[in-house]
Amino acid sequence: MIQFAINKAYFLQALHTTRRAISSKNAIPILSTIKIEVTSDGIYLTGSNGQISIENSISASEENAGLLITQPGSILLEANFFINVVSSLPDVTLTFEEIEQYQVLLKSAKTEITLKGKDAEQYPRIQEVDSLTPLIMDTKMLKSIIAETSFAASTQESRPILTGVHFVLSNHKDLKAVATDSHRMSQRQLVLEHSADNFDVVIPSRSLKELSAVFSDGIENLEIFFSANQILFRSETISFYTRLLEGNYPDTNRLLSDSFETEVVFETSTLRSAMERSYLISNASQSGTVKLEIINGNVSAHVNSPEVGKVNEDIDVLDVSGSDLIISFNPTYLIDALKALKSESVRIRFISPVRPFTLTPADDSENFIQLITPVRTN
Amino acid sequence: MIQFAINKAYFLQALHTTRRAISSKNAIPILSTIKIEVTSDGIYLTGSNGQISIENSISASEENAGLLITQPGSILLEANFFINVVSSLPDVTLTFEEIEQYQVLLKSAKTEITLKGKDAEQYPRIQEVDSLTPLIMDTKMLKSIIAETSFAASTQESRPILTGVHFVLSNHKDLKAVATDSHRMSQRQLVLEHSADNFDVVIPSRSLKELSAVFSDGIENLEIFFSANQILFRSETISFYTRLLEGNYPDTNRLLSDSFETEVVFETSTLRSAMERSYLISNASQSGTVKLEIINGNVSAHVNSPEVGKVNEDIDVLDVSGSDLIISFNPTYLIDALKALKSESVRIRFISPVRPFTLTPADDSENFIQLITPVRTN
Repeated sequence: MIQFAINKAYFLQALHTTRRAISSKNAIPILSTIKIEVTSDGIYLTGSNGQISIENSISASEENAGLLITQPGSILLEANFFINVVSSLPDVTLTFEEIEQYQVLLKSAKTEITLKGKDAEQYPRIQEVDSLTPLIMDTKMLKSIIAETSFAASTQESRPILTGVHFVLSNHKDLKAVATDSHRMSQRQLVLEHSADNFDVVIPSRSLKELSAVFSDGIENLEIFFSANQILFRSETISFYTRLLEGNYPDTNRLLSDSFETEVVFETSTLRSAMERSYLISNASQSGTVKLEIINGNVSAHVNSPEVGKVNEDIDVLDVSGSDLIISFNPTYLIDALKALKSESVRIRFISPVRPFTLTPADDSENFIQLITPVRTN
Repeated sequence: MIQFAINKAYFLQALHTTRRAISSKNAIPILSTIKIEVTSDGIYLTGSNGQISIENSISASEENAGLLITQPGSILLEANFFINVVSSLPDVTLTFEEIEQYQVLLKSAKTEITLKGKDAEQYPRIQEVDSLTPLIMDTKMLKSIIAETSFAASTQESRPILTGVHFVLSNHKDLKAVATDSHRMSQRQLVLEHSADNFDVVIPSRSLKELSAVFSDGIENLEIFFSANQILFRSETISFYTRLLEGNYPDTNRLLSDSFETEVVFETSTLRSAMERSYLISNASQSGTVKLEIINGNVSAHVNSPEVGKVNEDIDVLDVSGSDLIISFNPTYLIDALKALKSESVRIRFISPVRPFTLTPADDSENFIQLITPVRTN
C-alpha cells in the first residue's frame, strides 16, 4: 500500500514528460493509464502507446523533488485525469496514499481527493533492451539531425518503411540519417567523435519528433541502446523506448548525382517568402505547382490557378550559373526543405526539368543534402 | 477600375478587424467575401455573417495608412484568401489595381499577384440605422458589462430569446443588463452619467463577444444607435451592426429576493480553486454536482463520483452567519460566476437548499448580482 509525499511542481513535470507517450484514444484501454511504481530508491512513472514507451524516474535523493517514501508499491491511474487532479491541488506539496486496494487518497492543504486506480499487474511489460555498451550522442546534435530529416519521411502507411528515418553507422564513426517520401529526400551525414559499433536501423519519424520534445536541451548526452526491434534513448532520469520499423530501406544513394547543369544560390529567407506566396495561389489549383524560370541569369516564379489568380515574381539571387532552365514543382516541398536549413543561403543544383534537384547549405554541400522531384507539366 | 497604394500593416489591421464578422463556412457564399469600396475620401471594408456586419473605414487623411487613391470603385474578394495574400507580400507598401473587370493586380516590391474578384453589386445591402441622437458609452464600461453578463446567456436555440443579453434603460439613466439560461442569471446595473432615451433591447450574446474583440480599449467612447431590429455601435473608424433578438425577455426581477437565511463571504480565488477541483471529479459522474455543507461556521465541499473518486475539502471563509445549510449544485455555474467577478471577495446568500442562491461582490451588493439554481438531490 503505497505512501509518499512529494513536491507538486516536480511531480507534475515528470508526469507531463511521461504523458507524451500516452494517447487518450488508445485502442488498448490500459494504455490510457500511467503506471506509478514506488520503491525505496524512488518513483518510476511509465507511459506507453504501444509504439513509444517512456519511463521517468524521480530519485529519493533528488532534493528538488522533496520525496519522502513511507511505503513502496505500484498502481495504475487514468493518466490525463490524474495529472489534472494533481495540478489542481492547492499546496506546494502533496501526499499520495493507497488507502484501500487500488484506491488512492491525495492530500494537499485541506483538500482530500480519492481516486480509483487499477492493478499494476495489468500493465504490459516493456521489453528490455540489452544494456551492452551504448552509443553516446550529444542531445542537441541528435535533435538537430531529427529536425533536418524527419519532416521528409512519409506520413502515409502505404509503404510503412518510408514513415521512418534510416540511421546507419558505418566505419564505426560515419553516421548517415536519411528520410524520403519518394517525392523528396533529406540526408544528413556526420562523423562521430568516438567510434562505436556499426548499426543500420529505421526509426519511426513520429517517435523521433516525440523524442525531441521529451529530452530538453539541458540534457547534454543521451545513451542509445539497440536491440533487434527496439531502440532505447536514455538520460539520467528518462528512458525513451521506440519500436523500429522492419524491412529494407530503399537505396537512396543512387538518387544523388554529382553532375548538374544549372546552379543558383539564394538567400534562404528570400526564396522561402517567394515560395510561400506561390503556395497560397498554387494550393487553390489542381496541379498545385509553381514554375521556376532561370533565364539569362534572372530567376522568376510563376503560378497560374485559373480559378483564383496568378503570381509572377522576380526572385533576387546571390549567384547563378549554367544553362537556362524552366522547371515545375510543388512549392510545399521547397518550403519544408528551406525551413530545415539553418544556413542563411542555399545552393540549388538542377540537372534538367525532369530530374530531381538538390539543395545544400551554400557553405557546406557535403554533409546536408536535400532532393526534390519536379512535376512534369505537359 | 480601382487603383490605390497603401501601407501593408495598416491595411492588414483593418482587414483583420473586418474579418471578425466573416465566417468562411457561411451558407450564403457571397458572405465569405470582403467588400472593398474605394472613394475619394478613403476605403470602406465591409464584412458580414448575416447577424453581425462590420464596416471599417481607412481615411485618405490618416497619415499612418499611407493611402494614395488614384481611382475609386468597388469589388468583392474572398476574405480569408485575400488577407493571406496581402500578409504574404514582401514590401511595407502595396498597390492595388483593378486591371480587368473583377480582376485585381497586387504589386509589392518585385511580386505581382493577380486575384479574381466578384461584382460588388452582388453584396447584400446593410440596413441603415437612423442616425438620431446616439447613446454615448464608455467603451471599457460597455466591455465590462458584456464580460459580466454575456457568459450567463443560453447557448441553446430552444429558447432563442435567452441567447441574448437584455439591456434596458429606464428613467433615462438607469441601465440594467441581464442574461440567464434558466439555470443561472447575471445582472449588472449602473447609472449613466448623461441622460438618454429609454430603450429595451435583447442583443445576441455572441454578437456582444465579437464586439468586445473588435473595439480595442484604446477607443474611449462608442456611439450607439437603435432601430427596430438592429443596433449600431460606432467608433471613429468602425461601425459594428448586429441584429436584435425578437420577443419578450422573461421578467427576471421576480427571481431576486431580499431575504436570506445563510450568508458566507469567501476569498474569490480560494472558492474558485476549490470548485475547479470539485468539477474535475463531479464532471465524471452523472449528476455532475458538488455538495456544499455549511455547518457550525465551517464550510466544506464534497463530491462523490462512484466511477472515479471523491473530493472532500474544507474551504476557508472570511465570514459566515445564519443557519446551517447543505446545498448541491453544478460547480461549473459557480466557476463561471466567480470568473466574472473582479472583486477579491464574494458574498453568497442562501435561502434554502431548493431556492436559488445569489453572489455579489463583497463590497457592493447593489449593482452586480448573480444567481445560481441548486440541484435537488433528495
